[in-house]
Amino acid sequence: MNRADLAKIIEHTLLRPTATETDIRNLCTEAVAYGFRAVSINPVWTTLSAKLLQGHDVAIDACIAFPLGASTARMKVEETKDALQNGATEIAMVINIGALKSGYAQYVEKEIATIVKAAAGAPVKVILETSCLNQEEKVAACQMSLRAGATAVKTSTGFGAYGATEEDIRLIRATVGGHLDIKAAGGIRTYGDVVRMLEAGATYVGTSTGVEILNDAPEK
Amino acid sequence: MNRADLAKIIEHTLLRPTATETDIRNLCTEAVAYGFRAVSINPVWTTLSAKLLQGHDVAIDACIAFPLGASTARMKVEETKDALQNGATEIAMVINIGALKSGYAQYVEKEIATIVKAAAGAPVKVILETSCLNQEEKVAACQMSLRAGATAVKTSTGFGAYGATEEDIRLIRATVGGHLDIKAAGGIRTYGDVVRMLEAGATYVGTSTGVEILNDAPEK
Repeated sequence: MNRADLAKIIEHTLLRPTATETDIRNLCTEAVAYGFRAVSINPVWTTLSAKLLQGHDVAIDACIAFPLGASTARMKVEETKDALQNGATEIAMVINIGALKSGYAQYVEKEIATIVKAAAGAPVKVILETSCLNQEEKVAACQMSLRAGATAVKTSTGFGAYGATEEDIRLIRATVGGHLDIKAAGGIRTYGDVVRMLEAGATYVGTSTGVEILNDAPEK
Repeated sequence: MNRADLAKIIEHTLLRPTATETDIRNLCTEAVAYGFRAVSINPVWTTLSAKLLQGHDVAIDACIAFPLGASTARMKVEETKDALQNGATEIAMVINIGALKSGYAQYVEKEIATIVKAAAGAPVKVILETSCLNQEEKVAACQMSLRAGATAVKTSTGFGAYGATEEDIRLIRATVGGHLDIKAAGGIRTYGDVVRMLEAGATYVGTSTGVEILNDAPEK
């Protein structure tokens, strides 16, 4: 994989609440300069990012009900529509973890399906927050994502107890086969981390250290 | 202060994303049994909590744009209205930390004022997330809360680097005087913690260990 190909599997991520306008401007400038797949941002920065990235081949990934997933389904839908109106091109939504753990599988799946519908063709990533789930719940959430028409499963928010693990990526890949993309996110800091995630079955990664990762990557 | 008075300055809190329906039912049952001031919950549990607490003197505090505060102003307003429609009696909203740090003080203040208006008389607590702010920003956010018509300032989400400190409570009290309530939240675990917060100037506290705190409190 050359550096351009590597950049195209990195989502350049800035989700900490203290991020400023300057930080977001830098994020978008770097995303263009390095050719990253996407910027992954909180919803309030969608309008600015869309303006800065107009005409560039960088997706704008807005994180919805983030990072707890404990909004009402109605608000997740409204937040999805709001983000798309503001220029988001992809949606990442956190599942209702508490509902899943309460046995309301149908509620969780229907919520995902409703967001896929609200996204009106824009790719939807379903964030599992694997650090909160047991094996059975991870598998169930992957199957729901598949049935609900999501585009990808994303392991983690980056705010949980831990992030992406090779074991979780392998479990997710075994569950969704080739039908969904897998985004490894949370704790990915080095080129070695990226390689491990891809080898385990990830399609792309989210990281806030994409520039360092590219600089550390071998030339070819 | 007797135990009943102590209970009335405790907001019984359950905000972790893994909370189940059973956990929320227990939270509400305990809130009634012990006479807590409020339950503090994620929005998805508002309808259930309102049903369980109907006819009881326990406020329902829904946390909006929680815990990052990085939603659009429009969505914070919609989430406020949604929570009130679902039975919330108080709103706790996280300020737009990134906007404050970017120098958009007017945006931050206007957002608070818009939420106060959307709350239509229901008390609004403004969550500063003090661990993200410097002294100047803490003072500015308190002054904005005052001007915008909020009811209270709340120190922390419980998801930040640290929670309520006596130093922050004293700074907030010095800034808002007697005009706003102060909710100390984040890291409050013991009866001693509660006493320290009250002595520093807090009006009430949020904690997930309210039952233990009451049990540990002296009889009188």
